[in-house]
Amino acid sequence: MKGIRGVLAQRNLREVQGIVEKALIEYVDERSEDPAMKYAKDILLAGGKRFRPVLGCLAYEAAGATLDDKMLRTALSAEIIHTATLVHDDIYDQAKLRRGRPTLHSQHGIAHGIISGDYLFTLGYWLGAEQGPEVIKVLAETCIGLANGELLQFDHIGDLGTSPEDYYRIIDGKTAGPIAGGCKVAGMVANADQEIVEALESFGWEVGRAFQMVDDLLDLTGNPRMGKPRGTDIYEGKMTLPIIHALTTLHGNNRENLEDVLMDFSEDRWDELIELLEVSGSIGYVRSLIDSHIQRAVESLAILPNSGQIELMIEFARKSALRST
Amino acid sequence: MKGIRGVLAQRNLREVQGIVEKALIEYVDERSEDPAMKYAKDILLAGGKRFRPVLGCLAYEAAGATLDDKMLRTALSAEIIHTATLVHDDIYDQAKLRRGRPTLHSQHGIAHGIISGDYLFTLGYWLGAEQGPEVIKVLAETCIGLANGELLQFDHIGDLGTSPEDYYRIIDGKTAGPIAGGCKVAGMVANADQEIVEALESFGWEVGRAFQMVDDLLDLTGNPRMGKPRGTDIYEGKMTLPIIHALTTLHGNNRENLEDVLMDFSEDRWDELIELLEVSGSIGYVRSLIDSHIQRAVESLAILPNSGQIELMIEFARKSALRST
Repeated sequence: MKGIRGVLAQRNLREVQGIVEKALIEYVDERSEDPAMKYAKDILLAGGKRFRPVLGCLAYEAAGATLDDKMLRTALSAEIIHTATLVHDDIYDQAKLRRGRPTLHSQHGIAHGIISGDYLFTLGYWLGAEQGPEVIKVLAETCIGLANGELLQFDHIGDLGTSPEDYYRIIDGKTAGPIAGGCKVAGMVANADQEIVEALESFGWEVGRAFQMVDDLLDLTGNPRMGKPRGTDIYEGKMTLPIIHALTTLHGNNRENLEDVLMDFSEDRWDELIELLEVSGSIGYVRSLIDSHIQRAVESLAILPNSGQIELMIEFARKSALRST
Repeated sequence: MKGIRGVLAQRNLREVQGIVEKALIEYVDERSEDPAMKYAKDILLAGGKRFRPVLGCLAYEAAGATLDDKMLRTALSAEIIHTATLVHDDIYDQAKLRRGRPTLHSQHGIAHGIISGDYLFTLGYWLGAEQGPEVIKVLAETCIGLANGELLQFDHIGDLGTSPEDYYRIIDGKTAGPIAGGCKVAGMVANADQEIVEALESFGWEVGRAFQMVDDLLDLTGNPRMGKPRGTDIYEGKMTLPIIHALTTLHGNNRENLEDVLMDFSEDRWDELIELLEVSGSIGYVRSLIDSHIQRAVESLAILPNSGQIELMIEFARKSALRST
């Protein structure tokens, strides 16, 4: 009865999230004496999707292991490093809110934001290093990819010639890589065969790409119900896939208009922008690309034995493609 | 002939520094494909004292090992993490110059400064993790102590009631801890006995404390020949040991005057400040404390077999107490 082994087999996604959350709360408590934790714990415990650790725990059991403290700490490592990057991103993005709360640096100052982020990186690497040098190597490569993706994104700010290839390099570094790394590490800690580890990693790459593309679309549609503003990427000049696609597809007047809208954007130009993206078919194009990445994610799991955990991973992937926050 | 074993036995300090420098240049080259290295390499290769890696290499051989690639990478780990903290410190200290060159963020922007610092942390932890979880544990504890020391220093900005105990907690976290950690790790990587590892760590603590106190004095005296400005700490309201001592020692009018000078400092009040520090005997007091920490550093090495490396460590410690930059 391979399919129902493991403590997550009979759970739903919310329950897996609850297990991760509990482990995180315990770990924050374990480090509560650190002065830096006073600043860092708010954002650590402010909710969030726990996307990376939930997928990591599921991947671990899908690879044949049973969730234990070792994997939970590995999963926390990914979540804490992710949080470190959010704290630092918020500083240079000058973001005021994160997960519905004031950002760390806007509340306590830039120094405290930088230092608390560094502290979180330290905790994350430490937790990862408990699993040995192979795991830390994956974490390190992931973080180097992340830095590279962020820097590449800066290079392409306002660059209307950004290609789809540039786009993939950016999102593979900053979004898909960390998710792929989390899934890969789960397989490694589970001592799974190389081909299983690679399958889990592929799953992470594909889900991660879809995840970022959904983000790109959400920036265009926003979600007023969740208080999520739209257009942040447009104002910052970030070249998201719908924009890159429209710039490539449109010609003549439409292309000129789009360029003008992007270079001189304001709230009263939303209708103009959306209309151009409809003419170019860019929103539909990105949606179909999201579906195709999710499909490939699902397919990459085919070599793993069927299990409740695999079903949850697939459910997670599909839901992430439909999310509105 | 225990005393002359090891590749550093017949070297002088400058030669050891040269070996470290060469290893660093090679490592930077090894990572030259990383886009983040484009920004980080300037500060990495801008000189600096290489205090931590030089001491680490000497401690390694003093503990009976022979300098090898393993130790050089461990030593680079400490240096690169140190550089990461400098890049980040310079952002929130709004420093324009570091090692005589424009700071990373002042040249490339805050985002690039934060991201490059994160990248350097990653490299440092990765190099450390190659030596196993015990080494990364020491590095992580050191970095947590560093964050704690920095945060504590902020808590005491402009706090005229800062005690010598507060001061030691700050400098142990931000300066002495990383030096002690570097020496400790060298002993661990050398597979030395526990008491040798502890002796090397003690040496690091004592040298590190002296090192920070010299920094405190240099901030008061400056070094116009080296273009080093004086008074940075005073302007920022940092409570350095000479100031804490003077605030504790002076009474009546003198104490009131000192408080006034500190709270409302300007270039034309230097004479007033120095005179008060002379009346309180604070500069002499700090100098004698530096001597005593160096003395204790030297004594802590007594259990190690005498060697050229030990002599170089002692020379290094004594020179650091007399340095003018």
